[in-house]
Formats: sequence, structure tokens, C-alpha cells
Amino acid sequence: MPKISNKGLSMPASPIRKLVPYSDEVKKRGIKVYHLNIGQPDIATPDIMMNAIRNINMKVVEYSHSAGNLSYREKLTKYYSGYGINISPEDIIITTGGSEAVLFAMQSCLDPGDEIITPEPFYANYNGFAINAGVNIVPVVSHIEDGFALPPIQDFEKLITPKTKAILICNPNNPTGYLYSQQELELLKELVRKYDLYLFADEVYREFCYDDKKHFSVMHFTDISDNVVLIDSVSKRYSACGIRIGALISKNKKLINTAMKFAQARLSPPTLGQIAAEAAIDTPKSYFDSVINEYIARRNLVVESINNIEGAFCPVPTGAFYAFARLPVDNCDNFCQWLLESFSYHNETVMLAPGTGFYSSPNKGINEVRISYVLNVEDLKKAMICLKEALKVYPGRK
Amino acid sequence: MPKISNKGLSMPASPIRKLVPYSDEVKKRGIKVYHLNIGQPDIATPDIMMNAIRNINMKVVEYSHSAGNLSYREKLTKYYSGYGINISPEDIIITTGGSEAVLFAMQSCLDPGDEIITPEPFYANYNGFAINAGVNIVPVVSHIEDGFALPPIQDFEKLITPKTKAILICNPNNPTGYLYSQQELELLKELVRKYDLYLFADEVYREFCYDDKKHFSVMHFTDISDNVVLIDSVSKRYSACGIRIGALISKNKKLINTAMKFAQARLSPPTLGQIAAEAAIDTPKSYFDSVINEYIARRNLVVESINNIEGAFCPVPTGAFYAFARLPVDNCDNFCQWLLESFSYHNETVMLAPGTGFYSSPNKGINEVRISYVLNVEDLKKAMICLKEALKVYPGRK
Repeated sequence: MPKISNKGLSMPASPIRKLVPYSDEVKKRGIKVYHLNIGQPDIATPDIMMNAIRNINMKVVEYSHSAGNLSYREKLTKYYSGYGINISPEDIIITTGGSEAVLFAMQSCLDPGDEIITPEPFYANYNGFAINAGVNIVPVVSHIEDGFALPPIQDFEKLITPKTKAILICNPNNPTGYLYSQQELELLKELVRKYDLYLFADEVYREFCYDDKKHFSVMHFTDISDNVVLIDSVSKRYSACGIRIGALISKNKKLINTAMKFAQARLSPPTLGQIAAEAAIDTPKSYFDSVINEYIARRNLVVESINNIEGAFCPVPTGAFYAFARLPVDNCDNFCQWLLESFSYHNETVMLAPGTGFYSSPNKGINEVRISYVLNVEDLKKAMICLKEALKVYPGRK
Repeated sequence: MPKISNKGLSMPASPIRKLVPYSDEVKKRGIKVYHLNIGQPDIATPDIMMNAIRNINMKVVEYSHSAGNLSYREKLTKYYSGYGINISPEDIIITTGGSEAVLFAMQSCLDPGDEIITPEPFYANYNGFAINAGVNIVPVVSHIEDGFALPPIQDFEKLITPKTKAILICNPNNPTGYLYSQQELELLKELVRKYDLYLFADEVYREFCYDDKKHFSVMHFTDISDNVVLIDSVSKRYSACGIRIGALISKNKKLINTAMKFAQARLSPPTLGQIAAEAAIDTPKSYFDSVINEYIARRNLVVESINNIEGAFCPVPTGAFYAFARLPVDNCDNFCQWLLESFSYHNETVMLAPGTGFYSSPNKGINEVRISYVLNVEDLKKAMICLKEALKVYPGRK
């Protein structure tokens, strides 16, 4: 039998999905599982998108332009100008989900062995993309005590080597829900300018900011626009994760021309998804108002429930739809597996994402979990009761 | 300004698309261009697919399983069993187009610096995927005189080094339209077995075999099933290039488990496209009968027209929808550009793909072009007249 590649062997299995087999097992036990482990919201995709799909009128589902349909990119510029971001269609490459945008950015800007600094805990799939691109993610630890705020800028600077090519920020943050302030981002900007690095910003949760906080985009840094790369996606914005439409955006023409070569090799992003995404731009504000109110109610419930558990702590996230909590357990991997294999309360249990999967530093996140508040309040209440009851009887309780 | 990666700099621009800017120019001249340069057919996507999209009924467009919807993979096994190919849903990873399947295969099986042997001329984007994966394509020249049949197996064997990890075959072939026989493939099988290589087979044109020739799939080589990787796509089969649904198929479980890690990192293939592709499996045979008759008529017209031009030669392809022809010109790149910039006949011209883009050996394909017969017979007739008239006046005529 021929060998598997070293790259293939070193690719991490998705930490968010590694418990899925246990989840399948638990179904056989006839127990209901509340899935708080993945970022798949239950929020309805806007009617305007679904109708665009249902009213599709084309004889042949053709390739689109490799950078995506021009009509969609033109309309996207209006969406961004609503956030004070001025770009032209030529600054945009439509990608197959935000995932492809991350990969295009890494491949276009970094060579094998180069390094990207990012605060941890971080979105676990960045690891997969980095290994795919042959580059190294260098983590800067952020802390639960201050809600996972940006670590001191000196902590970033200490890690800069001749191999450092980029800083990657996810804002609002997955997995912590932290929303970086303009002030924090300005510090990153100065560092990026000083060392002439790329600043990759994954802003796919832009719409989900709470408590009257406003999102500040790195695209506002027009004085370092050649350094800035925006990674975006419609997956979370319109609760349409399956349409696989994202974007890589930059004013750096050399970078866009390079990423276009990767885009041309894979021909085009999905045509049907683009039609839906283009229609989505006309989603009424009322849709977002109601979604955001819903997420705030969910977040409040989750944070309050956890902080009412003795020994547990959950900072209040002000963005995205994740909470990152510390639980009074010996080991979150064991605990999450135990929840699925050995526990039930009223024939129900809960599935969480172990914190360890979001760190690359060793021994971090051992008593932490990510909770995606992607279920309705009634279900979340039951899930939080499960969690509370589980912690009463978990053998590894600390 | 930070630097572009070496990988980015070495990525080739798509040779099929490099003339597109000239095509845009020619439109300004008010001249009609017959696009025979790309593999985008004008054939209607089957109604059954379009209706599946129009009747879509889901509240949330969710991620699918990273390997694709199980219902789709189950139904695909029936499609393959119609070709005598016995696989199970676990042998299939649904990909974002055949493109992603090629990339997953390369990344899972080869390390940077490893080599893949493939007959040339070959599908130009293989180059892009190879550079992306850091691997090298080693070409074996096939020849227009024998219609681009499989080169002697000794020519393959001579190129095998310790770095050789795979042989890649596209059958029926893009860009030549050649359909490899079972006998030819058996020779490859023995070589693959002797050196324990992977055999990657891109069979996306499986349905398009003419003159009563039958397609033989590498999946029939059940005695080397750990070595065989099938790359597939619905793009061409159902004239639905834009839905971006392909597949990576292998009985090699280690390989599938490895490719799954790459699949998990990018979350899922497009949900909407999968719904359409699943419905497509029920496309009636009458659809293919009519499509194949149409392609045969087109092929006959193109081959006959070219062979009637003095100094030109086009072998008769028996598969796919491409013809690869030799023209009496000094340089096909110049000729193809001249067609767009400087030529017109009755206010029309034709766009072809220069042969050079399909070779990696130097100085090959200089007087060759790929012609995609993706337009209707009436348009093709006019395009062939354009080509004939152009060759009468082209300054670099030989």
C-alpha cells in the first residue's frame, strides 16, 4: 500500500468534530443531545435568500468568474460602504466559504516555514489551513480573567522573528466571543506597520456585536491598506453556513492578483450560493435586530447559568455567538466525552467543544469549554440544567 | 509593502483564461467572439436538477457533513454500480468540484518535492494544484500523430524516481479527447503495482464516449484498490459546472481518513449544489442520448472542418468534448491573440486555447490549439469558417 503524505499525517482532525462519534453512540442510547459544540445556528436563513434560490432562472448552471460574479461584487461594495469601508469590486475575490479565503491569504502571503502570530484560544481550523499551507501558527495567550482581551502588544512583539509574515485576528472572536476595540486594533496596526507584516482579519461575525458596542474593521486602516487582508463570509451573517460563500478582500493589488491565480486554478466559487448571497444583501435591518436580540437573550442565559455554578466562570462575551467558560473539572476532553458516554439527566445531555482544541500551547484550556449558543432559549435552558446536574456527579469534578 | 509568497509568485495564471482580457477588448470593437476556449458547455442543465433547486425546502441552509450528505453518497453508489463500480458511501468524499478532489488527492498522498507522472498535453490546472501542494508534475509526451494515445509504458517507467508517488490519468482526456482503452490502462496498472504508486484517475468526462466505445474505469482494478483514487465531478456530466460538486473516491481507508481531515478543515461542500447533484442521478437516459448525439455532430463538424484546412490536422477524439489540433501557424499564442486583436470575418472571430498551456515540456504545442466544441452546430460552423478565413490571412501562417 502506498504511503500517506507527512502533511496528511500531521493534519489535525477537527477538534470540534472529534466527539461526533460519541454523539452518534449516544443517539443509540435513546438520549437527546443538545449540540452546543458547533457554530451552526438554528436561526432561519432570510426569506430573501431562499426565494432567490427558489426563483432561480437559468438554463445552464455555468461557472462564474473566478473572482465571483461581478454583479455580486458590485453589490457587496454597497454592503461594505454601509460600514464605512470603501472598496471596489476589483478588491474582492469571492471564495468558497471563509475557509478558502483564509487558505488563499496564507498561500499568497506566506511560504512554508513562515509564521503567523494569533491570540489563543483561536478558531481551531486555522491550524488545518496552516498545516495545509505549510506555515506555523505562533500563539499569544489571552486570558479568561479579562474576558480574552487582546494580550499586551509586547507579548506579540516578543514573538516576532524573521519568519513572521502576518498577524491574524478574528473579530468578534471565535471561540471567545471577545470584540476587539478600536484602541486594541490600533496597537496591532502600529506593530504591523513597524515590521511590515500582513494583518489578516477574520470578521465573519461583524454583525454580532452586543451591548451597544460597535465593530471596528481593519479595513478602516487605510494608511496601511497594502498590509490589510479582510476575510469574510456570509455563513454566519445570514445563518447560511451551507452556501459556502466567503470573500478575500484587500486593496493590495499584488496580493489580489496572486490570490486570483489560486482562484483560477479552482475555476469558480459556487454559482447557486452566489445568487443567494447577492440577494441576501437586501436583507432588512429588522431581520438582524431580531436575530441580535435573540442572541443577547441566549448569551445572557448561558453566562448567568454558568456563573451560577460553583467553581465555574464565564466572562461576558460581547460578540459572535460563543461563550468560553472555565468549568470545575479535571480535564475538559474527558468531561465532554463523559457527558456523551456516561451521563444523562431526564434522558438528555449536552455536547460542548473541549477548550484544548482551541489552543496550540501545551496544557492550555484543560478546564475550559466553548459553548455555541446556537439553540433557542428553551433548549438552552435545558442544556444548562444538564450541565449543572452533570457537574454535580462528574467523577473528575474539582 | 509586505512580500508575496514564492508559491504565489510561481502559481501559473490559467492558460485558458490568459486571453480573456483580449476577449474583453474585442467586445469593444463590436465583434462577436465564438468562445471555444473553455470547457463550459451550452447544453441545458437537466430539468430535474433545476427543479430540485427551485423546490428547495429548508429553513436553514446548514453545513452538510464534511464528506457530503449521506443521502447523496448513498445514491451515488447506485450511480456507480450502473458502471459496475462497487463502492460504499464511506469510500466517497464529496468535494467542492473535481478541483478540490485533485488537490485533496495530491495533499493526502504526496509531500513537497514528490512527483506525479502524467501524459501531456494535460489539463492545465493540474499545474496549479501541483504548485499549491508543492509537488512536481513530470510529463510523458503523447503525440498528435496517434491521436494522443497512451505513450509507451517504458516512457513512464524511465521517469520513475524515488520521488515518484503517483500516476495521473484523465480519461476521457482533457485536452485531447482521447479515450484510453482497457488495454492501455492495464499497462498502467502493472506499473503502479510494480512500484506501489498511486493511480489518480480523473474521469469527469465518463459519460462522453463516442463511436460505441465504452469507458473503462480504474475502479475496476479491484486487485490494486488501495492504490486507486477516482476523481469525479458532476460539472460536465450534467452541464452544471457552477454547482461545484465533485468527489474523491477510494477503497483505501487510510487515504480517505486523511483526505477527511482536509475536508473537515474546510467544513463542508456546498449544500445547495449537493441537493441538485443528488436529484441529478435520476436524469433520464434520454437526456444523455440526446447530449451525446449533439456532441458527436459537433465533433464531426470540427474535425472535418479542420482537416479540410490545408496544413492543419485534427485527430478524431472519441471522448470528452475537446479536439486538439495542429494548425499551420508559427506560434499558437500569437495566433490566438491575433484572432482577438486584429482579425474579424463578417464581424466575428473565434477564441481558442493555445496548445502551449497544456504542456510543461518546453517548446511543445507551439502550433497546436485546444478546441472545446461547446457551442451549437450553427455557431460552430461559423466559428470554423472564421478559423479557415483567419488562416488565409494570418501573417505568421506557415
